[in-house]
Order: sequence, then structure tokens, then C-alpha cells
Amino acid sequence: MSNKTQQQLEHHSTLSTIRTKIGLAPEAPILDEHDVHEHLTWSSVRHIFREPFAEFFGVFIMVLFGDGSVAQVLLSTGEKSAPGGNGFGQYQSISWGWGLGVMLGIYVAGDSGGFLNPAVTFCFCLFRKLPWRRFPIYFLAQFLGGFVGSGVVYANYINAINSLEGHGIRTVPPSTTATASIFCTYPQAFMTKASQFFSEFIASAILMFVIFALKDDSNPGAMGKTGAGQMFPLALFFLIFGLGACFGWETGYAINLARDFGPRLMSYILGYGHGVWSAGGYYFWIPMVAPFCGCTFGAVLYDVFVYTGPESPINSPWLGFKYLLTGGYWRKKKDQEKYDV
Amino acid sequence: MSNKTQQQLEHHSTLSTIRTKIGLAPEAPILDEHDVHEHLTWSSVRHIFREPFAEFFGVFIMVLFGDGSVAQVLLSTGEKSAPGGNGFGQYQSISWGWGLGVMLGIYVAGDSGGFLNPAVTFCFCLFRKLPWRRFPIYFLAQFLGGFVGSGVVYANYINAINSLEGHGIRTVPPSTTATASIFCTYPQAFMTKASQFFSEFIASAILMFVIFALKDDSNPGAMGKTGAGQMFPLALFFLIFGLGACFGWETGYAINLARDFGPRLMSYILGYGHGVWSAGGYYFWIPMVAPFCGCTFGAVLYDVFVYTGPESPINSPWLGFKYLLTGGYWRKKKDQEKYDV
Amino acid sequence: MSNKTQQQLEHHSTLSTIRTKIGLAPEAPILDEHDVHEHLTWSSVRHIFREPFAEFFGVFIMVLFGDGSVAQVLLSTGEKSAPGGNGFGQYQSISWGWGLGVMLGIYVAGDSGGFLNPAVTFCFCLFRKLPWRRFPIYFLAQFLGGFVGSGVVYANYINAINSLEGHGIRTVPPSTTATASIFCTYPQAFMTKASQFFSEFIASAILMFVIFALKDDSNPGAMGKTGAGQMFPLALFFLIFGLGACFGWETGYAINLARDFGPRLMSYILGYGHGVWSAGGYYFWIPMVAPFCGCTFGAVLYDVFVYTGPESPINSPWLGFKYLLTGGYWRKKKDQEKYDV
Amino acid sequence: MSNKTQQQLEHHSTLSTIRTKIGLAPEAPILDEHDVHEHLTWSSVRHIFREPFAEFFGVFIMVLFGDGSVAQVLLSTGEKSAPGGNGFGQYQSISWGWGLGVMLGIYVAGDSGGFLNPAVTFCFCLFRKLPWRRFPIYFLAQFLGGFVGSGVVYANYINAINSLEGHGIRTVPPSTTATASIFCTYPQAFMTKASQFFSEFIASAILMFVIFALKDDSNPGAMGKTGAGQMFPLALFFLIFGLGACFGWETGYAINLARDFGPRLMSYILGYGHGVWSAGGYYFWIPMVAPFCGCTFGAVLYDVFVYTGPESPINSPWLGFKYLLTGGYWRKKKDQEKYDV
Repeated sequence: MSNKTQQQLEHHSTLSTIRTKIGLAPEAPILDEHDVHEHLTWSSVRHIFREPFAEFFGVFIMVLFGDGSVAQVLLSTGEKSAPGGNGFGQYQSISWGWGLGVMLGIYVAGDSGGFLNPAVTFCFCLFRKLPWRRFPIYFLAQFLGGFVGSGVVYANYINAINSLEGHGIRTVPPSTTATASIFCTYPQAFMTKASQFFSEFIASAILMFVIFALKDDSNPGAMGKTGAGQMFPLALFFLIFGLGACFGWETGYAINLARDFGPRLMSYILGYGHGVWSAGGYYFWIPMVAPFCGCTFGAVLYDVFVYTGPESPINSPWLGFKYLLTGGYWRKKKDQEKYDV
Repeated sequence: MSNKTQQQLEHHSTLSTIRTKIGLAPEAPILDEHDVHEHLTWSSVRHIFREPFAEFFGVFIMVLFGDGSVAQVLLSTGEKSAPGGNGFGQYQSISWGWGLGVMLGIYVAGDSGGFLNPAVTFCFCLFRKLPWRRFPIYFLAQFLGGFVGSGVVYANYINAINSLEGHGIRTVPPSTTATASIFCTYPQAFMTKASQFFSEFIASAILMFVIFALKDDSNPGAMGKTGAGQMFPLALFFLIFGLGACFGWETGYAINLARDFGPRLMSYILGYGHGVWSAGGYYFWIPMVAPFCGCTFGAVLYDVFVYTGPESPINSPWLGFKYLLTGGYWRKKKDQEKYDV
Repeated sequence: MSNKTQQQLEHHSTLSTIRTKIGLAPEAPILDEHDVHEHLTWSSVRHIFREPFAEFFGVFIMVLFGDGSVAQVLLSTGEKSAPGGNGFGQYQSISWGWGLGVMLGIYVAGDSGGFLNPAVTFCFCLFRKLPWRRFPIYFLAQFLGGFVGSGVVYANYINAINSLEGHGIRTVPPSTTATASIFCTYPQAFMTKASQFFSEFIASAILMFVIFALKDDSNPGAMGKTGAGQMFPLALFFLIFGLGACFGWETGYAINLARDFGPRLMSYILGYGHGVWSAGGYYFWIPMVAPFCGCTFGAVLYDVFVYTGPESPINSPWLGFKYLLTGGYWRKKKDQEKYDV
Repeated sequence: MSNKTQQQLEHHSTLSTIRTKIGLAPEAPILDEHDVHEHLTWSSVRHIFREPFAEFFGVFIMVLFGDGSVAQVLLSTGEKSAPGGNGFGQYQSISWGWGLGVMLGIYVAGDSGGFLNPAVTFCFCLFRKLPWRRFPIYFLAQFLGGFVGSGVVYANYINAINSLEGHGIRTVPPSTTATASIFCTYPQAFMTKASQFFSEFIASAILMFVIFALKDDSNPGAMGKTGAGQMFPLALFFLIFGLGACFGWETGYAINLARDFGPRLMSYILGYGHGVWSAGGYYFWIPMVAPFCGCTFGAVLYDVFVYTGPESPINSPWLGFKYLLTGGYWRKKKDQEKYDV
């Protein structure tokens, strides 16, 4: 960047300042030779919001495919005119939808790291020194991605919803024509509150444990591999598919506030009524809280038993509680900028 | 090529001239050491039409698998003698067929870039400086690939079609024995014209948005990856599978003029009658027009919010409208040959 | 190998002589540092039959999974005690079985190139200068792999076959309890002889066309890729899965003499009676002959329209017919040893 | 490590001593730059038990997904409220569950080599010079992984089990509401004892044969590949999926003591009663013994017919029996430490 004019340097410095204020790293992850457009107004905006845009569109694509697959299967259940004579998909199509939605979302959101889930971002802050200042704007971007994405799915399937439920009628489970579960998750009737929480908790813990394993480049095992590398997005497909096939029945494997609360709010706005909050005994808060608890548990498990890198507080005295109690950990956070992801 | 005789050089120059005239780059993408056969008549022809041949066979293979999967599932619906007792496939088999058809088509069409879709070529011209002169011959090749491919599928399944519809009887939906949807897409009965358009539009936009993300080698994100690389064909399998599983019910996710109009014309010629045009309220133009609109929208979305490379007009003053209005953009096209793909 | 004793050199030379006599390359594809055991009797045998062993086990594994999947789905059709309540698999499981059988078979048969199909070997001889002398012993190995593999499947499922057909009763389609189609393919009743041939022909042509595309390292296309590389076995999974999902109903996509005739002979020996030959109007010869015709056609198509390498006779005067007619091609075969694969 | 203090060196030496005593290699597979925490108490524990922890969590993840998929499909069979109207999965979902469970388990267990199966460890000891001293602690870790994993699945699905079987009622097949097969395998009623054994034997033999092929880096075949490399975990997905789709009906493809006996013991403790041992004519010992026999047979087959490396006793005089009989092989084991994996 040495051949930049004084004016360019000043402009660049302004952008860095704004980026820092909203919680991002001073330098946006943009190739040097692509940096030439930042004098354009919009390019400056894109420069500033690079990672939030990435997270927004990552979750947006994920929810388009995920909610889209639920919509198609649910609305066409038993359709005899379908090729094969039994609807345009089955339960397993939904595993495909969410699995490949996450995979493609990660490709889309490469600029930001492709977290796509506030609980995952949270764990990267807590255990991998992603600066905490990133969390709020990533969170906002992820939430909005899910919110907007589910709106597009609604727009696409509005005729089919009308034809199943009737014009102007929108219901939530256990109504037999309920279409609210296109948007967000509702628990099975036989689930107690504790079971609901546990089901989301365990699925989130598995999610985080495996993500940390797939991203662990310090693993010099006998197979000579170091993390999943370029297979990461594909491995995530299998991971999410697996959660759907193995832990998806009881509560619908929300495991993600952005994927559940965003669309839930959208469905409330679209007229599904108070039921989106009260169904399942006010179940709605569980997929907001349990993923954070579950992911943290999964991350602790991985770091306690497997991870050896210095980024994790688990690998400091008293498994990190010493810093926590003495305040040292929080003070030390100021020089963690060097780990800036 | 320095050790070529004068005669060889002249011949080579003739080939380059012809290639330029039909809209291709002067040099065909052929290894230097494989260039020795161009004195043979047919090798010269192949030299000239290298990329169009690639696009033709790419779409040909794609439609063989795609239309083939529809044929097998639709014609064998409910067949009790099948292993498993319920037909030779289900709706999901069609997602497989189109997904892997696109994947293998891309491997086949490596010489041309593997666009396989006029709307995708269109967006690469508009946003990635693929010369516009390429468009007509690629378009023709893609259309013919779909046209011929669907004919082969018909030839293969003619007995089974006869045995379902009756000899000489060929019907289009909503006839209960309709087999026309083997070839091209027909909308569900509950869809309004606007919904039909929107459904194709949104699916095309997702297609283009994700393709641009997968091909974005300037993405220096935290994961250290730059586009999908050698995983591109596999990622396209998941993308197309996902469109089928999540947005495939309402209008059959045509999202491609070559895949829909080519086979539709073939089915008209094969005797399916005027209905192939009039069905669904003269729906046939929607999968011709909507993919161009949708893909353009998806490409704009990607370039506005994510892409930083200088090839995109979005990354020029007034998001490219300045050049457009002052004519500068069009004048500048003359020196875009250097981006020749 | 310079530090070998005189005795070792003599022994090595004996092995090379035997290998040459049975049609193989003088040097076996074995790492130099692994060559130390050839003084052991059995290691010498393995040294001699390296590629035939590889082809045998490649086809063996392929048929175990392929015929195994047919057996499981067919024999458990409608089984209500299965998880899910409807048998241990469906038609699609068979696409999985054959697809992954071929994929894993290729990994197993890396030493020989992993042809697994006499028609594919045939096309590599004809169009890629694999020496013709290889063909007989590869053919024998492939045939035996299918023969033995299907026997193991029978041994594994003998109880279930007894419980479906009755002890000592073995029938071929169209018997409603027929289990002969576990082993080899039988055509649907509505197929004419010409259609049977065409169906196998077209599937074989697609097979060969795509294999040549996936193996074409001279393809310097815009995507910067050269063939499928290490993705080859995975791409073959998708190719075979696709043939099963899109062209698998009418004649069962045999497309391989080793996979069809080997198991057919086994089933005859096991007591399925004369019907294994006479069923479908003496259909049995079609999956023996059509794959050779179809694969050759697919290979010609690829080489005429896409391939530029000098190995293909298509890239010689008169598309190779000149050499053929003048005898030059056959004479030239003597110095093709340098292409030895 | 030259800049370590005397104290650090002593501590490190203590850890190495303990590791050697429990059968592991003196040096844990940890990056040098990550070695700095070993003065912390817990980090020392983790240092000592690195590979056992890896095996534990690998099997743990595998069983979570595997048993989880059986639980979801079995417990929700026929559920009409599911999207698609027919339960939350089918038999094939179980193939997915076990296949991706193994794939993700291998990623998790990279530190130890990812054996996940005592019979596989056994064969690596016998045929690839993995020191025998490793076997006991790997075995224990694998067993505990399966034991604990199945307990978590039970905890997650306890409500659904209660609602199918009734509170406090737990039954084993052939009870029509049996849920014991969530945990471990039970044979089909028509199987004789010999067939049970054969079915497990053949599936285990295929497993080991293909694993050795995928890991064979000395294979310099025509495809230029050397083993499956970074595709190994993905190839294992296909291998396990295939065993489920092709050899999974008769005895449930246990092929792994850790996956079968661990969960079986857990189900006994959880109250499924004596039936977990007596069902199928005291079938329980078959998935304990047959995998060792089958894997050994598969490994012998591979080494006899394909493998050329010096690690295998097959590649020593009299196919290894000479050393065995003269005691030389066992004496030689002392200097096999250099192959330490």
C-alpha cells in the first residue's frame, strides 16, 4: 500500500476507525489488489461491514435452504401427483436442506469465518480468543440473516400455505394443519421442559465439540492430518445432517438462536399469533438459551480432554478459573488483539 | 510453438480467425503438446468449436441424468415388483439426478468453464467480463445440448411411456397419466402467474449468488480458503440438490432456459401437442425469462455486498450506472479482451 | 536396484519374463523399497499377478456391495419389524450399494488402474494405448471377481432366500418370489429386445464418456482443473448412483460383463436353473455384448468431440481408419509399449 | 525443546515414564509449541492419556450418532405428524447415522489414529507393527466410549422410550415394542447360529480389507494415488454406509465390540433385563468374537494378495509362520518400537 496517495491513506484510516468502533478488526479481510475501490461510497460501506455482511448472507442462505426444505416437505405431504406418488420429499429431505444450507452458508461467509450461529461465535470468543467486541455485530448480522431469510421462504410458499391452511388462517402445532413449524422449531408433545432443554443442550454440545475438532490444526495424529482443512464445509454437511437424523425429532435441533428466534419473530409478524411464543409451554426461550449452554459445555469438553493450544483459558492455571477469579484473564484481554481473526 | 513450419503457422492463424469470427478467443484451450493434430480436417473443426462442444456435452450429460431421473421415477411410480415394493425411486431421486447431472456436466465441460446455463453465462458476461461475443455460440450450444439430450431420454423410455399413456397418446399435466413433465417443468395448479415467476426468480437468484461465492478466489477469509477450488463440482451437486429439495415443488426449479426450453421443444416435436406451450396459463415463457432476471439479481446482490474484484461493474462509480449512462462502460468493452476466459 | 546381488537380479528377471508372458508389463507397480521380499515364494507369485489380483479384488468388493444391497432390499421388502416399519432399504439403497461398491473397488484396485469392467479395459486398449496383451488376464480377473463375490453374497443371505422362496426352491423373474435378480439383471416385461439393447447401450456410453472426461488430464479449462484427480473415486460414486437412479429401471444397468455374467453363472451353478439364461427372451447375452458396443460409442464420442491427446486413434488421419485400413495402426502397436500403464 | 529448564525436562521425563507404563509411546503426539502447559496438573493428565482420550471421544461421538439414529427412527416409526407423514426417518437414516458417526469420530480421534474398534486396533498390532502394549488401554478407552455414549442417547430419548414401552417397561426383541435394539444389535429370527457368525464375520472382513486398502500408501497404481489420504474419513462414511445398506439386515452389522458390548452392558444396567444376553440364543458373544476373526481374515486377505510393505508378517518367510513357530517373530517384537505410531 506504499504507493497510495496521502488522501487515500486518510480515507483508509477513517474506515479503520469506524470498523474498530463497531467491534471489527481495523483491517478488513480484502486482497490488497482489490482495495482500490474504497474511494467509492458504497465500496467504503462494504469495506466497513465486510464480516457482518458475510455472516448475514451465510445465515440467510442457510435459512433459505433449511426453512425451504421444511416448507416443501410439510406443505406437500402425501401429494399423490408427485413423481413417486407420495409428496415432494420426506423427513430426510429436511436433513439434506439444513445440512447443505450450512455447507453453502459457510462457503458464502468465508470472509468472517462462517460462524452462522451466535453460540458458536460465543465459544470462539471464550475459548479461541476471538475478541469479545466482535460478538454484538456478528450477533446482529446472524439474527437479521435468519429473520430476512425466513421472510423470503414465506413469500415463496404463500400460495401453498394458503391452500393448506386457508386464506388468512395461520396456526401453530398441535393444530393438524399447522404451518408455523416451517419457520422455527416446536417440541413433540411428550417432552417435559427438562427434556426439551436437555435435547437442545446435547445437540449443541455435539455441534461445538465436533466443530472444534474439525478446526483443530494442532492435531498431529497418526493420520498426518491437521483438522478437516478444505473438507470443513463438507464435514459440516455431515455433522448437521447427522444432528437432524439422530437428534432432530424431539425438539427439531434448533441449536442456533439466529436460526430459531429470527424466523420465529418473522412468523409472529406474519400473523401466526401469540402461539409462536406460548406453544410447548413457552418453549421459545429454550432454543435461545440452550445452544449457548450446550456449545459452551461441548467446547469445555473438547478443550479439557483434547485441545493443547495456548488460546484456550482451559490451558491456563486452574483450568482458567484462576485468571477469572483474580481478574487477570479479563485484564489480559486487552492484548488479545493479536489473535484477531 | 516456435518449431512450427510456415504452413502450420498459417493454418493455425486461419483457425484463430474463424474462432474469433464466431465469438471465441483466438487461442483454443488446448495443451501445446496436443496441438499437433490440427492439420487433420476434423481436429481443425474440433479446435474451432472447442468451447461450444464442451458446453453442448455438459448440458447433454446434465439433461440425460436429470430428465432420465424424472422419467424413471414418474413412469415406475407405485411399481410393486421393484425391490422395496414401491417404484424405482421417489421424488428425492430426482434431486439426485439433477444434482449429479450438473456435477458431472461440469467435469465434462471443463474446457469452456462449465456454465451449462445461458443465464449463468449472461451473468459472467455482465459481471465478470466474459466477452459478450461468447454469449451467442455458448447459448446455441447449451440449447442444443438440452434438446438432443431429452431426445435420447425419450428414445430410452419410449416403451415405458407407451405402456403408461398408451400407444400414440401423449399428454401434459394435469392429465393423470401425463408424461410431458419428464422433459420440462410444469407448475403446480395452485400457483398464480406472479408466484410462478417469483419461485423461478428466487431459485435462480440463489443459484447465481452461491456460484459467485464458490468461484470467488479473492475471498481471504478466516478459514484460509479461496473459493471452493477442486470441490466446486461437488459443491454444485449440493446446491442443485438443495434447490430441488427446498424450492423444487412449485415450478420444478427449471432455472435454466437450456434445460427447460430445449426439452420442451423436443417434446412438442415428439407429439405432446400444443399443451406444452399452453399448460399452466402459457407458463412456458417463465423458465425462459425468470432465470435471466433471477440470476442477474443474485449476481448484483453478491457483487454489491461481498465481491471486491475490479471485474464487476458494481465496483465502479455509481455501482456501474455511471459508465452505463455515459456510454463509457460500453466503449470500455473493447479492451476487456484481456479478461478473456 | 543397483545394490542387488546377481542372484536377485536373475530372480527378478525371471519374474519379469513370466509377467510379460501373461500379458503384463515387465515391471510390477511396486515401490522399490518394498521389492525386497520377492525371494519369498508367495511374494513372487504376488509380484507376478499384481494387477490381476487388484482387478479381482476390485470387482469382488464391488459385487459384494452391489449384489449385497439388492439382496438386502429385495429379501426384506415390506418387513414391518424394521426400524421405520417398511423393510431394510428401498430401491435407492441399491443405487448406493453399486455406487459405493465401485468407489471402494477403485480404491482397492489402485495397482491396476481400477477398470473393474472388461468394456472399460477394452476402451482403454482401443483409445488410450493400453496394450492389448493386458486384456485377456484383466478380463479373467474381473470375471472371477464377480463370480466369487456373488457366491459370498449367496452364502451370507442363504437363510433369508430360503425363508422367502422355500428350501430348495430358486426362481427367476417373473416369479413373484424370484430371488435370481439378486445376482444379475433381468429386464422389465414391457421391453422389446431392441429396447433392452438400447438401454444397456446408452448407459454404457454415458459411463465411458464420463470416465474419459474425469480422466482427461489434458483439459486446461477455465476452471484450472485437470481431470477429477483425487476426486475420481468419489465422482464414480455419483456416476454409478446416477445410472442407477436415471437409467436403472428397464434393464437394471448391468453395463458390465464381469458384474452380470459372472454372478449369472454363479446363480446357475447354485441351482436357479435354465431360467437364468432364457428369461426375458434369452436376454443374458445383452449385458455381455451391449456394454462393449456402448462403451466404444461413448469413447468415440468423447475422442471425436473433446479429446486432443495423441494416444487416441481418432486423432490420426481419417479418424484412425487410415491406419486401420492400411494395417499401419496394427503394425504400429509394437512400439506402443512405451505407453505401458 | 532445547530451551527447557532442568525442571521442565524432569517433569517431561516423568510423563514419558508414566505413558510408557500404560503402554503408550514415550512422546505424546502434541505440537512442540503447544507443549508449554504440561506443568499444569490437568495438562499433565491430558498429556499422559492423549491417545486413550482420543479413542474414547471418537467412539463416544460415533455411538451418539449411531445409536441416536436408531433411536429416532425406531421410536418415531409411523408417526403421522412428521413432515412427510411417515416418521422421522427410515431404515436408511441409520446407515447415515453410523456412517457419519464413524467419519466424524475419525476426525475427533486424529491423535490416536482413529481406530474406534478393538478389532481394527488388533489388526494394526498384528499386521502393521502397532506395539501390542497399546492394545489394552485403547481397548478400555473404546469400550468406555461406547458405554458412556449409549447412556447419553438413553438420557436423551427416555421420554420417547417411556411413551412407546410404558413407564418402567423395557423389552428386548422379539417383543413388538422392544427398544433394546437402540443400543446394540439383535439378529433376525430366521438366522441360525452359524449364519449369525458368518454375517458378522464377512462384514468385519470387508471392513478391514477396505481400511487396509484405503491406508495403503505404498500403492503406486496407474491412478497416481497413494491411499485415500485426506479423503479417508469420507471414504469410511461410504464404507460404513455400505455395510449398513448391504450387510446390515441379518445381524445389524455390529462389527465392533466397543459399539456392541459397551451399549449392551449399559442397556442391561438401565433395566432391560437378562434378555440382552439371552436374546437370539445368547447371540451377544457373536459381535464380540466375530469382528476379531473377521477383521483378521480380511487383513490376511489384503496382505496375502495385495500388500507389499515389510511391516506385515505375511511378507516374511512362510507367510509369517516361520517366525511364529521359531519364536523369532515374538523376539523381534522388542525392536519394533521404531514403528511406533
